[in-house]
Amino acid sequence: MSEEKKSVYKPKTISGFPEWLPEERLVEQQWFDHIRRVFESYGFCSIETPSVEELDVLRAKGEVDKEIYVIERLHKDEDDGKDARLALHFDQTVPLARYVAQHFNDLVFPFKRYQIQRVWRGERPQAGRFREFYQCDIDVINVDQLPLHFDAEMPAIIWEILSALPGMTEEKIQLQISNRKILTGLMDALAIADSAAVLRAVDKLEKIGRDAVEQILRDENGLDQAVIGTILNLVTATDLASIEPLNDRMREGLKELQFVMAQLAHLPASAVRADLSIVRGLDYYTGTVYETRFVDDPDYGSICSGGRYDDLAGSYINKNLPGVGISIGFSRLFDRLRQKGSFNLQRKSPADILMVLPAEERRADAAEAAHILRKRGYKVELYHAPQKLKKQLAYAERKGIPYVWFPPFEDNQPHEVKNMESGEQKPADPANWATPPTEEGFDHEAVA
Amino acid sequence: MSEEKKSVYKPKTISGFPEWLPEERLVEQQWFDHIRRVFESYGFCSIETPSVEELDVLRAKGEVDKEIYVIERLHKDEDDGKDARLALHFDQTVPLARYVAQHFNDLVFPFKRYQIQRVWRGERPQAGRFREFYQCDIDVINVDQLPLHFDAEMPAIIWEILSALPGMTEEKIQLQISNRKILTGLMDALAIADSAAVLRAVDKLEKIGRDAVEQILRDENGLDQAVIGTILNLVTATDLASIEPLNDRMREGLKELQFVMAQLAHLPASAVRADLSIVRGLDYYTGTVYETRFVDDPDYGSICSGGRYDDLAGSYINKNLPGVGISIGFSRLFDRLRQKGSFNLQRKSPADILMVLPAEERRADAAEAAHILRKRGYKVELYHAPQKLKKQLAYAERKGIPYVWFPPFEDNQPHEVKNMESGEQKPADPANWATPPTEEGFDHEAVA
Repeated sequence: MSEEKKSVYKPKTISGFPEWLPEERLVEQQWFDHIRRVFESYGFCSIETPSVEELDVLRAKGEVDKEIYVIERLHKDEDDGKDARLALHFDQTVPLARYVAQHFNDLVFPFKRYQIQRVWRGERPQAGRFREFYQCDIDVINVDQLPLHFDAEMPAIIWEILSALPGMTEEKIQLQISNRKILTGLMDALAIADSAAVLRAVDKLEKIGRDAVEQILRDENGLDQAVIGTILNLVTATDLASIEPLNDRMREGLKELQFVMAQLAHLPASAVRADLSIVRGLDYYTGTVYETRFVDDPDYGSICSGGRYDDLAGSYINKNLPGVGISIGFSRLFDRLRQKGSFNLQRKSPADILMVLPAEERRADAAEAAHILRKRGYKVELYHAPQKLKKQLAYAERKGIPYVWFPPFEDNQPHEVKNMESGEQKPADPANWATPPTEEGFDHEAVA
Repeated sequence: MSEEKKSVYKPKTISGFPEWLPEERLVEQQWFDHIRRVFESYGFCSIETPSVEELDVLRAKGEVDKEIYVIERLHKDEDDGKDARLALHFDQTVPLARYVAQHFNDLVFPFKRYQIQRVWRGERPQAGRFREFYQCDIDVINVDQLPLHFDAEMPAIIWEILSALPGMTEEKIQLQISNRKILTGLMDALAIADSAAVLRAVDKLEKIGRDAVEQILRDENGLDQAVIGTILNLVTATDLASIEPLNDRMREGLKELQFVMAQLAHLPASAVRADLSIVRGLDYYTGTVYETRFVDDPDYGSICSGGRYDDLAGSYINKNLPGVGISIGFSRLFDRLRQKGSFNLQRKSPADILMVLPAEERRADAAEAAHILRKRGYKVELYHAPQKLKKQLAYAERKGIPYVWFPPFEDNQPHEVKNMESGEQKPADPANWATPPTEEGFDHEAVA
């Protein structure tokens, strides 16, 4: 190769499109594995949908136009104009509705699926807000009737996940649950014309405080003080039993919320709270709604949200398909902890063992030992060149590989293995070496 | 909900953007898990890059313009014009080069990474050719020098993967290996002016046959019969030892290829073949090149390709970064077997156990039994409503869940569990029930 200096273009990260170093990615994989394991432990099956949908499918929900990325071929030809315009999906709920309608006859209901994919939103990038990010969703969809127990299963699953993620065990988080029927019932009972505007104001309660919301409701929505008092007393109520429903809709919502909360009594007291100020922006929710916040930093926004919808796939199929679902905002949650330094980033490789290469003529022995250990479920990197031992050990050190294996340097010598943390080194046999699994990157499976 | 007939828009699959049913996705997950396990067992770490790169980064490689999808916000504003144009990546090699250059100081070399992501190409969809598909890549990149042993490790890893994928064990596949220096050396030795055109013709040998290639080389490239004979004798040679190198470049290529083949002697005889007609379209390969074909259907095209490149990241960084890599064309391989009916699609759920719900007042017992089994690593779906037992069993049957668990229907009764395949039903205790893992969808880990 030429040694002359080349003119180079220094590449940089594209704003809003995150990527991680190998040691960060290793933690990210642990997160995905944990989330998948819990989702599956409740019997949810995985699906994936294409990254794109027809633009009209995505737009049917309204509101989110600004956030949509459309795609097109750089060199379009006349055929491209004939096809529907395609756009990257901005969530996994709209694609799910389309999927369920399209494959209705091939699915078994209640259809319980999880979905872990990237989504795209062309919003201005800022802290915790990416343009490309992962969401982890679970939803249950049934025909005609969906038991309310599922509304309680969602937060229980999410609590089990969030409270045990690597790096998350020190964080205080809380799931906040409400039921839309309570507030929409109240709007009806109070005969409020522009209930959407009022709900938008209520949604800001946590962010701007009671006085500011009161002012909006008075000055912008023209509500009188008694009505405002009724609304704000309701949404700040802490005891559901003390609430007097004003109509059947409110009564139904309260009953549902109480049922869901009762089903969650086995969780720690601080894990879940009924919070009637929870509104959720998207308009397809019709009952239970969920948000999840850091207790110490509620302004960071919800890291896990969802709710019940009566008929999301109704525009595609002549069936009533009620559902309930919840979505972990994976990337924003992961990046927050990453930036806080909450992760153990020692490991830059999944390898459990670095196999030393003592000399070129010993390569076959080293490769054979690596082969035997791999068969037994260990992850083994064979060092690539017969360099000085010091250099090979330094490599294991820098990659955070916890064990270094020494195959025989001469005939009839034993194999030895060195624990890089304790420094201990002792004879070992690739065929029956057994060591407790390391915390990260270790395939427990085949070694047990 | 209203019962009236709604006007519905029947959604359909977007051509070239595949999606699978849950039972197909379950097999796809087994494939990904297997591939990941083998990649990691050799010490490759995972990385992911954003789905997009700056258009200029993707275009630097030339040739592929037509296939690129650009993205843009549906509602652009003046700010959008200031940023670089973005496009979906069409492979994982160009993003890897950019990643290595960008994070050079944070990586440990040799950098061994695997990458399993979707890529996009705006080609006309046809059998085995999607517009959105998964690739599974491994590459090793080092500074200045990269041992030739890695060129042999790649096909060994790929053989280990492909020969053991669910559904693939009956398929006859073969890795074909060549070294570009042999053919480019020959072009030099024969003083052939437009060697690219000649290599393109040679690349068609398997598809159109020797006579047709001879005709192209004669009529289109104006080569005389002796030169054509020399070229075609070389590329159809089956015994590397019989080849007489015409210059140093050829000699070096032959030596490298012989070394790689010798390192692969432990594989089954039919697994790997030296094939000097392998050219590979992309122009960045400089040494070893790989293709992989179905022996019974070579026309399906290569399902796994790659090679060695001397300096892929050279346009980004003043370092020599030689690498070697190989990429599994995951989706086209998976879809071929799917269409052939090679998969066991009985399981529509990852659940090992369906927990029967005997009656609403027995829900707590059933939930507790499910909880205990989940803690022990089993995947357990709790049936959602206290419906007739027949209906609950039919549900397990339709989802392909292998065990049905009966919690006590009355106090002091034992739990029982039914093996859905054998029909056998017997008493069991959630705390210590042990059963051999089922073939699919079973988390071996926590149960061992």
